[in-house]
Amino acid sequence: MITLLSDFGLTGPYVAAMKGVILSLNPDARIVDISHGIGPQGVDEGAYVLHQAYPFFPRGTIHVCVVDPGVGGQRAVLAVQAAGHIFLAPDNGILKYVYQDDPGFRAFQVVQPEFRRGKVSGTFHGRDIFAPAAGHLSLGVSPDSLGPPCREPVVRPVPELRVESGKASGEIVFFDRFGNAVTNIPRSLLPAGARASVQVRGIWMQGIVNSYSAARPGEFAAVFGSGETIEIAVREDNARRKGSLEIGDAVQVEWSLPGSR
Amino acid sequence: MITLLSDFGLTGPYVAAMKGVILSLNPDARIVDISHGIGPQGVDEGAYVLHQAYPFFPRGTIHVCVVDPGVGGQRAVLAVQAAGHIFLAPDNGILKYVYQDDPGFRAFQVVQPEFRRGKVSGTFHGRDIFAPAAGHLSLGVSPDSLGPPCREPVVRPVPELRVESGKASGEIVFFDRFGNAVTNIPRSLLPAGARASVQVRGIWMQGIVNSYSAARPGEFAAVFGSGETIEIAVREDNARRKGSLEIGDAVQVEWSLPGSR
Amino acid sequence: MITLLSDFGLTGPYVAAMKGVILSLNPDARIVDISHGIGPQGVDEGAYVLHQAYPFFPRGTIHVCVVDPGVGGQRAVLAVQAAGHIFLAPDNGILKYVYQDDPGFRAFQVVQPEFRRGKVSGTFHGRDIFAPAAGHLSLGVSPDSLGPPCREPVVRPVPELRVESGKASGEIVFFDRFGNAVTNIPRSLLPAGARASVQVRGIWMQGIVNSYSAARPGEFAAVFGSGETIEIAVREDNARRKGSLEIGDAVQVEWSLPGSR
Repeated sequence: MITLLSDFGLTGPYVAAMKGVILSLNPDARIVDISHGIGPQGVDEGAYVLHQAYPFFPRGTIHVCVVDPGVGGQRAVLAVQAAGHIFLAPDNGILKYVYQDDPGFRAFQVVQPEFRRGKVSGTFHGRDIFAPAAGHLSLGVSPDSLGPPCREPVVRPVPELRVESGKASGEIVFFDRFGNAVTNIPRSLLPAGARASVQVRGIWMQGIVNSYSAARPGEFAAVFGSGETIEIAVREDNARRKGSLEIGDAVQVEWSLPGSR
Repeated sequence: MITLLSDFGLTGPYVAAMKGVILSLNPDARIVDISHGIGPQGVDEGAYVLHQAYPFFPRGTIHVCVVDPGVGGQRAVLAVQAAGHIFLAPDNGILKYVYQDDPGFRAFQVVQPEFRRGKVSGTFHGRDIFAPAAGHLSLGVSPDSLGPPCREPVVRPVPELRVESGKASGEIVFFDRFGNAVTNIPRSLLPAGARASVQVRGIWMQGIVNSYSAARPGEFAAVFGSGETIEIAVREDNARRKGSLEIGDAVQVEWSLPGSR
Repeated sequence: MITLLSDFGLTGPYVAAMKGVILSLNPDARIVDISHGIGPQGVDEGAYVLHQAYPFFPRGTIHVCVVDPGVGGQRAVLAVQAAGHIFLAPDNGILKYVYQDDPGFRAFQVVQPEFRRGKVSGTFHGRDIFAPAAGHLSLGVSPDSLGPPCREPVVRPVPELRVESGKASGEIVFFDRFGNAVTNIPRSLLPAGARASVQVRGIWMQGIVNSYSAARPGEFAAVFGSGETIEIAVREDNARRKGSLEIGDAVQVEWSLPGSR
């Protein structure tokens, strides 16, 4: 099984060309799109979307991640074994969360010419390097056959989380289509039974609910989201627009246990 | 075979997470997207799109419909057998046309914990309830194994159609990408050979043609559409924009047989 | 294997209805989307996208191309064998590049009623003619069984390329999602080692680089693109917007060999 993630969009011929190359090598490959709507050259956005999707695929799935502003330049192409999955990606940090998930990951540079298209363009490695490598991996080629180990892959900073006693501060890392703001503050920080309040851009929300439908219509609410972090939502409305929220906005949560002060 | 319909969009990780869950349960499942572009929480739009697509799939197909403003609240999740197909949907009326198509439908509440993910979030039942149920159904689990019957599923009103002698009034129920306005007025109302005229927002169209290319460029025309209802189109232009048409706009048709008065 | 290309968009039920019809005939068909985002009735755009994608699919793939402003009118529906692939398309010139690729192509009119849906609408031949024909072809039916030969298929003009000694002029034929402007000027025109300059809308670019990352950030650069033609790009920016470029804009390239004058 092979998944694809890119910033190519679905209008042009690029995603289809990659699929054609894969299926020409392995007509039985199962190909699933994760997203092709990552913002142009949005490496951090791609990293986040990949991280929220890949764990739900079967072990052994090959995830092809082509958000690649450095295509044709000096950056390496990597094949990474981690968390029971295989990843093909430019060495630009798009796998930063994967490395966090499995610090014992193994990375290899994709350089062996027999696993590329005969002619490699300088502008479309998705078709000429990533897709053929995915096809060969899906046929049983081992990642370490593609080239030598990569000792120090590029790592990009992940959004910062600061935790103190009874307090944590993080940030908005993603907006879904409904305008809900996903943060990087994990649900697991909060002790069971804690009373919590959450703040973004001066908007305070009392309590954290378990579903959007437990919030009051039209008011900002903090919700435990499906990625096991706190989200900020407005029921029947769009929190992003209503609060003029942006990626990177600071979010605070404070909590106390009943009876404590 | 499994189809998916949602309002999740294709940019984020949500649709892929559902597919991953299904394929982890049943790696041989065939998954086909109906649409993930339903307007946020557009239950009526989702109902319409589902209804125009599902009958073309093979009998036994499992249709997963996640337009679900009430996720995490009191609304039930249903597995419905109808018209030779199986539907998984929140009990919010998104299946209203399916119930019309097959009044002998059977509905069950999806409650058995062994057919859910181990941990169910309050915000993403698509991944945690619908996708696992679809996976299990595709492996042969019977809908009535998922939980007890649901006696009175929620039904939403369908757009009204009034028929009198030689006249009918309905409304615009959908716009396609070309701006053609699809109505709920069935072609079958009009007797063979009838002369008809159609009106929307004060615009009168004489006659109903069988194809867009039979209309005069630039003029409003009534067309017998592919859903066996009357559509309003402007050849080589966009009727929705040109006429400032909206969903729900009233549409009248009047007809007479040649020689009658 | 079957690919689909259309201007239907992915929001409505139309693409799914086509897939349902195909899968009802041949549940084992592999269906891959090339694009459903072609501009409404964008026959030339569809022709270009098809041409950039189809060669990467396995020989024998069936490509279904439904950009069809003349649906329901007098235009024929064609099944074309060319370049080792099979194409189903309206006879409106969307296959113009395919005919160029393989002047020995064979075209047949799709008219045999046993390969259509029982009832054919005047507005949705994608579902009623193209999809059933694709299903039957994928089951082994031969293109020449679908109807009589078509002697003179419609051909649309392809963007003009003029070549003189040391000079060529072409035009912008496509924009990718990043705003890079793809031209029809082939890389193969330029002799190895030539020094070249490229001009569009009065903007002159010295030299042609092999990758976007070899260009200077913020400046217009000519790049040898993945379609083996010259592209115009702005690194880390959008050339289309920055230069107010449009499809059809004239592009000149001039070259000389070092030492020549």
